[in-house]
Amino acid sequence: MDSGNSSDVLPEDLSASVESFFETAPPLRDSSLTAQKLQAFIDRNSKPSEDGRPVRVVCITSGGTTVPLEQRCVRYIDNFSSGHRGAASTEYFVKAGYAVIFLHRRGSCQPYCHRLPEDALLDLFEVGEDSSIQVCQSHSAVVKKAIRDYRTAVERGQLLRLPFTTIFEYLQLLRIIAISMKQLGPYGMFYLAAAVSDFYVPWESMAKHKIQSSSGPMDMRLSQVPKMLSVLRKDWAPMAFCISFKLETDADILLQKAEIAMKKYQMHIVVANLLATYKREVTVVTDNGTIDVRKQGEDSDVEDELIKILIDRHCKHLEQSGI
Amino acid sequence: MDSGNSSDVLPEDLSASVESFFETAPPLRDSSLTAQKLQAFIDRNSKPSEDGRPVRVVCITSGGTTVPLEQRCVRYIDNFSSGHRGAASTEYFVKAGYAVIFLHRRGSCQPYCHRLPEDALLDLFEVGEDSSIQVCQSHSAVVKKAIRDYRTAVERGQLLRLPFTTIFEYLQLLRIIAISMKQLGPYGMFYLAAAVSDFYVPWESMAKHKIQSSSGPMDMRLSQVPKMLSVLRKDWAPMAFCISFKLETDADILLQKAEIAMKKYQMHIVVANLLATYKREVTVVTDNGTIDVRKQGEDSDVEDELIKILIDRHCKHLEQSGI
Repeated sequence: MDSGNSSDVLPEDLSASVESFFETAPPLRDSSLTAQKLQAFIDRNSKPSEDGRPVRVVCITSGGTTVPLEQRCVRYIDNFSSGHRGAASTEYFVKAGYAVIFLHRRGSCQPYCHRLPEDALLDLFEVGEDSSIQVCQSHSAVVKKAIRDYRTAVERGQLLRLPFTTIFEYLQLLRIIAISMKQLGPYGMFYLAAAVSDFYVPWESMAKHKIQSSSGPMDMRLSQVPKMLSVLRKDWAPMAFCISFKLETDADILLQKAEIAMKKYQMHIVVANLLATYKREVTVVTDNGTIDVRKQGEDSDVEDELIKILIDRHCKHLEQSGI
Repeated sequence: MDSGNSSDVLPEDLSASVESFFETAPPLRDSSLTAQKLQAFIDRNSKPSEDGRPVRVVCITSGGTTVPLEQRCVRYIDNFSSGHRGAASTEYFVKAGYAVIFLHRRGSCQPYCHRLPEDALLDLFEVGEDSSIQVCQSHSAVVKKAIRDYRTAVERGQLLRLPFTTIFEYLQLLRIIAISMKQLGPYGMFYLAAAVSDFYVPWESMAKHKIQSSSGPMDMRLSQVPKMLSVLRKDWAPMAFCISFKLETDADILLQKAEIAMKKYQMHIVVANLLATYKREVTVVTDNGTIDVRKQGEDSDVEDELIKILIDRHCKHLEQSGI
């Protein structure tokens, strides 16, 4: 049985720091509109599909969060992430029939766009003499496929995109999504590929105005962001299938860190990757061993193989949950 | 006469810190290719135009620089800037006949795109049954205008886009551009709208791997970035017309800070703006007074008025330079 169903409760100090994080965070804009859109999406996708099988819903987080250093934000700390992993994974989950909530960093890589060049709109398009819009020959097929596939996913109700920028927006949205997804039980999945800040400056202790560069070096003290993965697993959506990511730059500590994270946060799977090779290979760390996954050819994505393995594990999770 | 022609030299400590900044910065990728493209662009635009008037060239910097906190960069400090100002200004300079070097943060707002919604490619386009690409009716005119105007600017050789991400890339590119533009004398202009980091972590003292979040708060000490505006004015392109920007969140100190910056860095003009109102109004600070500039209507840009004033001042600068 899923350990998330056990009587585990959050340690008191974590509960307190989580509560304080949310209480002091600047309130989310349009939160009731977002909650409405989200609930409609989940309601539609919690009914059985045409073949009678309940739809599975995955929340994919993607891109890096920012940590404002000033309340009227001019400077912030950012975590590197193009959002390529989350965008590509969204496509493969949609293809496999999942409904996807794509919680992404504003401006990061979007599903169906990850094979297009930067600034595609400017560099690939032309307006013909008859005022029709044309795409340059070399990219015509890939652009048309991107637009078609995206439209289809949206029209079928399989894709909901929600943007964030700061760590405050990200964690508030993740909490709303997770609590809404609770009703899906084990059919819900979290695929937490976003690069989330470990450190932040609590809103109330933050400089109100731009920090002046008058003279000398600047010293900063950053607090730790409470470990929300534990809260997600134990409180928000305890039946959901949870996959988190571990990115390191040092190969020597990667697998060990991934295994520690899996136990500490009771993840079902941790996907371990190195900054230097993350586009070609990842290691899937499970509680009974590891699986190395590589991309199969120049035109393929490592996410194609990865998502197949994860969906297989999700099916097993459903079986183990007695479904 | 232009004070840049005086015998002012850089203070020794600034010279030393500039030298050390560039010597220890990670080398620019593709720097010789960039220098080639740049030289070709400047050569083409240093010849008189069809009406016999020498072409004026402006380097517009746009978007925020990042400061890596780790050598294999996972975390960095970023300066807020959408790049909207630089992108819109580029359009008005091109319209007025200038050649524009658009030195911009990778992924920031692009010229001709600032009126399009985010993720326009996904949300505005459709593929028809005949496999032609269509734009949704509501945005058809604005998308077609954007693509046409951009293409025209590029085909006329009036626009060169160069991207940066880090403070190291930005300052190395700015130096290459400025030194190349020296040959243009007073016909060259710098419009420094980028949000440049005041603080950085010198590359050699930077953590090689991802900083571990093991436990407790994180303390950081950041050094000041050497004030390159002085170097630009005194060494790199002493004859060019120089405009810098001052962004503050506190109205009480804005004009004073702008005036200090103008004198300290010997700028010809400083454009002062507040984070809360920068899209609607700015104040042009000159050595003989200030001019308040507001956008004229809902569909207009404050940059339309601003660029007219700056071009007028640039003409006066050419006259004063004896041309």
